[in-house]
Amino acid sequence: MELYSGHINRLIEELAALPGIGSKSAQRLAFHLINMPQDRVNRLANTIMEAKANVRYCSQCFTLTDNEVCPICANQKRNHNLIMVVENTRDMTAYEKTGKYEGVYHVLHGAISPMLGIGPNDIKLKELMLRLKEDVEEVIIATNSSLEGETTAMYISKLIKPTGVKVTRIASGVPVGGDLEYIDEVTLLRALEGRVEL
Amino acid sequence: MELYSGHINRLIEELAALPGIGSKSAQRLAFHLINMPQDRVNRLANTIMEAKANVRYCSQCFTLTDNEVCPICANQKRNHNLIMVVENTRDMTAYEKTGKYEGVYHVLHGAISPMLGIGPNDIKLKELMLRLKEDVEEVIIATNSSLEGETTAMYISKLIKPTGVKVTRIASGVPVGGDLEYIDEVTLLRALEGRVEL
Repeated sequence: MELYSGHINRLIEELAALPGIGSKSAQRLAFHLINMPQDRVNRLANTIMEAKANVRYCSQCFTLTDNEVCPICANQKRNHNLIMVVENTRDMTAYEKTGKYEGVYHVLHGAISPMLGIGPNDIKLKELMLRLKEDVEEVIIATNSSLEGETTAMYISKLIKPTGVKVTRIASGVPVGGDLEYIDEVTLLRALEGRVEL
Repeated sequence: MELYSGHINRLIEELAALPGIGSKSAQRLAFHLINMPQDRVNRLANTIMEAKANVRYCSQCFTLTDNEVCPICANQKRNHNLIMVVENTRDMTAYEKTGKYEGVYHVLHGAISPMLGIGPNDIKLKELMLRLKEDVEEVIIATNSSLEGETTAMYISKLIKPTGVKVTRIASGVPVGGDLEYIDEVTLLRALEGRVEL
């Protein structure tokens, strides 16, 4: 039995395929969208299309940005010899919110996960190694403290050590199994201060 | 401090304005959308626009549908002399899922709420009264058992009684304060069977 009309069903299906949106939420959202004023619907659809079309990787740190180089990499007041490696742009933002980190970032866009079939070549690791040719003094590994994050941290440290660049890992102030983006700023700062050399 | 680029920020803002999506979910969704394949992004945006453009009110029961008349109103096997009044299309679907209701519906698109400034003229009540000119035998009021739903039920029953049409209310098997769309089908059926004349 088709409970809703074709257009409504298709919209519910598309919404339910998004992360964190279950079938009840998708129904609620679909009816909300249909009842929204036309100009707001246009704006939402356009914003999605424009973000998709215009957002790209920063050519240096690979975060998602509107420009060739992101504002942090373009900022000459930041310490470009200090690179913090994070799994994604949201984790980078979590550290930016502390307002205390002076270096730049490198966004991996993932973590090594044999379970999910994600290997070292599937994340921006080669790109990180290329950046080490410059005057980099320290690489801070701030991947999540999950199994994948720890695996990735160990892998990167083994890769970088032969180059002579100092490699550190944020302290385990971050709860084991936790996701960086949900952790409070004080804990994030404590983890940064207590970082240890790998 | 601008944490994300302009396009990402605008997308996060648009998403966070939708019901049930907080700022963390909006961030997560925004990055998911940007990382989705181009064809899936196009499909989502088009589905939203098409649903908005093509979905309209059924000319008889005022549910949201693709056609001039919805499939339920167009179905001659349904009992068109039995009208169930619901607050919205999702509540109608909740009763349709039981598969046991043989009559048709009338969708009010809201409930009377002095608190929110929603009066009898702001919902499809006049349209319900116009339908009573036909051979209607019974109107079953299935508005939510919230304050607004009960107020609406009382208002409708007072309006209909002088016309001589039988008015019933679904039984209070539905928990007080509950929202119809989240209730299991057995409870919904019990409430239908135990309906009492108002």
